[in-house]
Amino acid sequence: MHVAVLFFAFALTGTTLALDNGLMRTPPMGWLAWERYRCDIDCENDPKNCISENLFMDMADRLAEDGWKELGYVYVNIDDCWSSKQRDDQGRLQPDPKRFPGGIKKLAHYLHNRGLKLGIYGDMGKLTCVGYPGTPLDKIELDAQTFAEWEVDMFKYDGCYSNATEQEQGYPLMSKALNATGRPIGYSCSWPAYQGGLPPKVNYTQLGEICNLWRNYGDIQDSWDSVLNIVDWFFENQDTLTSAAGPGRWNDPDMLIIGDFGLSMEQSRSQMALWAIMAAPLFMSNDLRTISSGAQSILRNKMAISINQDALGIQGRRIVKEKSGIEVFWRPLSKNASALLFFSRRTDMPYRYTTSLSKLSYTAGSYKVFNVFTDETASLKDSTEFVVSVNPTGVVMWYVSAPAKFNLRQFYQGGTLHGRVYDDREENAIPRVFL
Amino acid sequence: MHVAVLFFAFALTGTTLALDNGLMRTPPMGWLAWERYRCDIDCENDPKNCISENLFMDMADRLAEDGWKELGYVYVNIDDCWSSKQRDDQGRLQPDPKRFPGGIKKLAHYLHNRGLKLGIYGDMGKLTCVGYPGTPLDKIELDAQTFAEWEVDMFKYDGCYSNATEQEQGYPLMSKALNATGRPIGYSCSWPAYQGGLPPKVNYTQLGEICNLWRNYGDIQDSWDSVLNIVDWFFENQDTLTSAAGPGRWNDPDMLIIGDFGLSMEQSRSQMALWAIMAAPLFMSNDLRTISSGAQSILRNKMAISINQDALGIQGRRIVKEKSGIEVFWRPLSKNASALLFFSRRTDMPYRYTTSLSKLSYTAGSYKVFNVFTDETASLKDSTEFVVSVNPTGVVMWYVSAPAKFNLRQFYQGGTLHGRVYDDREENAIPRVFL
Repeated sequence: MHVAVLFFAFALTGTTLALDNGLMRTPPMGWLAWERYRCDIDCENDPKNCISENLFMDMADRLAEDGWKELGYVYVNIDDCWSSKQRDDQGRLQPDPKRFPGGIKKLAHYLHNRGLKLGIYGDMGKLTCVGYPGTPLDKIELDAQTFAEWEVDMFKYDGCYSNATEQEQGYPLMSKALNATGRPIGYSCSWPAYQGGLPPKVNYTQLGEICNLWRNYGDIQDSWDSVLNIVDWFFENQDTLTSAAGPGRWNDPDMLIIGDFGLSMEQSRSQMALWAIMAAPLFMSNDLRTISSGAQSILRNKMAISINQDALGIQGRRIVKEKSGIEVFWRPLSKNASALLFFSRRTDMPYRYTTSLSKLSYTAGSYKVFNVFTDETASLKDSTEFVVSVNPTGVVMWYVSAPAKFNLRQFYQGGTLHGRVYDDREENAIPRVFL
Repeated sequence: MHVAVLFFAFALTGTTLALDNGLMRTPPMGWLAWERYRCDIDCENDPKNCISENLFMDMADRLAEDGWKELGYVYVNIDDCWSSKQRDDQGRLQPDPKRFPGGIKKLAHYLHNRGLKLGIYGDMGKLTCVGYPGTPLDKIELDAQTFAEWEVDMFKYDGCYSNATEQEQGYPLMSKALNATGRPIGYSCSWPAYQGGLPPKVNYTQLGEICNLWRNYGDIQDSWDSVLNIVDWFFENQDTLTSAAGPGRWNDPDMLIIGDFGLSMEQSRSQMALWAIMAAPLFMSNDLRTISSGAQSILRNKMAISINQDALGIQGRRIVKEKSGIEVFWRPLSKNASALLFFSRRTDMPYRYTTSLSKLSYTAGSYKVFNVFTDETASLKDSTEFVVSVNPTGVVMWYVSAPAKFNLRQFYQGGTLHGRVYDDREENAIPRVFL
């Protein structure tokens, strides 16, 4: 474990500027259709689940009436397969008339009347991934204007059927076009996912300047393997990714599949906790009409949400990877606090992991620890050895209050550390010992 | 789909003789420590979960008091790590004195007083898999006598640290030695799992004559990947395996992990259903003190259990493997009935699978269909197209009552079909069309 080294890499974050639309200062939260409903357009035989205005109104009702909205889940996002196969006479995108008879603007109003926001989907190529009309370069301004006219609040710009050159032009162009409409529209870019997610092909400084969030990696599927695969990629590349994230600009490891078919309760808690550590957008893709109480309680966990939504917006890191299969993750939070996550990759039995805060590089002192999923609290000295019992594929997540304020500005002594400009938002973010 | 061909392979089953101890005419049911508790011997720090007489008495209490016993779950089985590291002065195995202070005989009485049965574990090598004293060739008779003296009801004979030659001698020798004690002791052989599970290295005719059940394949782990891996192996080799199974002699795909940490509810139903189709022993390895009500309701499903326990004891088969990821399994049951299982390997969304009973090779007629996990019933003509919506990694399982009795004996016309002796237990087992 080389936490000190890791930290210095971490400390070099936060220098890029965010997209200047003032949106999504914390990771956006809401609901997105794709993972759970895909391109189900068979409203005749599957009326409750097909991609139609009814589905989005149903979900809006649930978000508004069942208390999700108050927790922060406010976006209701359409994905692929919403549009007609042809543009209209004026060349504009139009929704499928049978499945969206009221049109998108009316749907947006339905949501706005309930305190919710509407997201819509497009694609940089001639066609979307499933084959609906895309938004290639020559359609960008028109479509941005259409979305603004419809009073849409967020736009996901996918990348199927486009090449690197087109993407290099198109993604910034759409950013400008959306801004030019005057309507605040959160902008989700799939660009990096189509370019392997890593520099030099991906320029995260630029992304932070033009997009509010971006998909770095492949689509999530309804399986634990898929979650693990995504988690591995994000933390293996944490040095690159954490420095890209911050208020208004987020890495997006894709939707929450909690409440669907493939995750156990342990695994559901793990996804929620890992997404909180990653400062990831929290878009559920599930059926809020029938979701189990167990899944609900995980998605509604206030402490996990507040860690995810921490105002500093610093993406957390994996700081320990044990041969036993135990991994420890850490995220610095406001008020000199932090989140600690113990995760087991084992598939046998609960593992009793022994460590101490000082072994996890916390500075000397007495900490208050709050267990996110059990509500237990404890006081813990940095030197005290403790045991956490971590279930197979499960997590133990702590909110850790630090003992004292640490003056990060003083440490930086005037503004730079290892060539890096001091960033106000990190004040008190990091327990002393990591420095 | 070549059901007719599949059936002929299937029809050649059931000719071998079962071990003549009269036991386990239906697949044994109960609880087995290994998957969930492994070799946890740390009773000081983990007293509730360590391998000790307390753990087995706790599980016995739950089985007896919570209604599991009445459903058929009667075995409480010890696995590795129960014994002292040394044999006693007379060379006999002895339990660890700290963890089993009352001894095995007293534990057996505790179980017998509650209408339960005790299983114990040994290994053909010098050492067990974890390193406790094994039962090599020269100790077989002594240990069989010890187990009988302790009034043990079942014995699992593992194969670590033994070679093929020793196994060839040892597994039959133990069978004889157990029978020679005069006490009925169910005999579980790990032999085939150590020889790759397939002929010519494995002789299933012989296994059926000396063992009540046998592990064919690797250990299950607490993950859906592990369940899928096991299921794939068993059904890819169904032509070999189904003919080996029957009353008193069972293929054992290993424990049920329902109620543990790695399976979603869908996946839990899938394991229960697939184990029922396979006529597999149902040994839960979980914590019956804390198991969720959702997991309980799956393990307690009476129709799934009755399919598993069907008196004919014919192991079912996979009869359809669609490119869509839908697979259909079928098991013939008593009273001219059958079980049909629709399974989805997809990881996206519920899949609407259209078929008909006649497409699944059922003969003409009107059938009664009972949905095992929803209790819905329906009448269904063989020719009627129907849609089953199968959730990702989930199942829809039907008990199908056939319209009329079919005289299999008449079909065989005097006793043989394709060189095969007619077997009484198959009477009415197979819907006509499969012939």
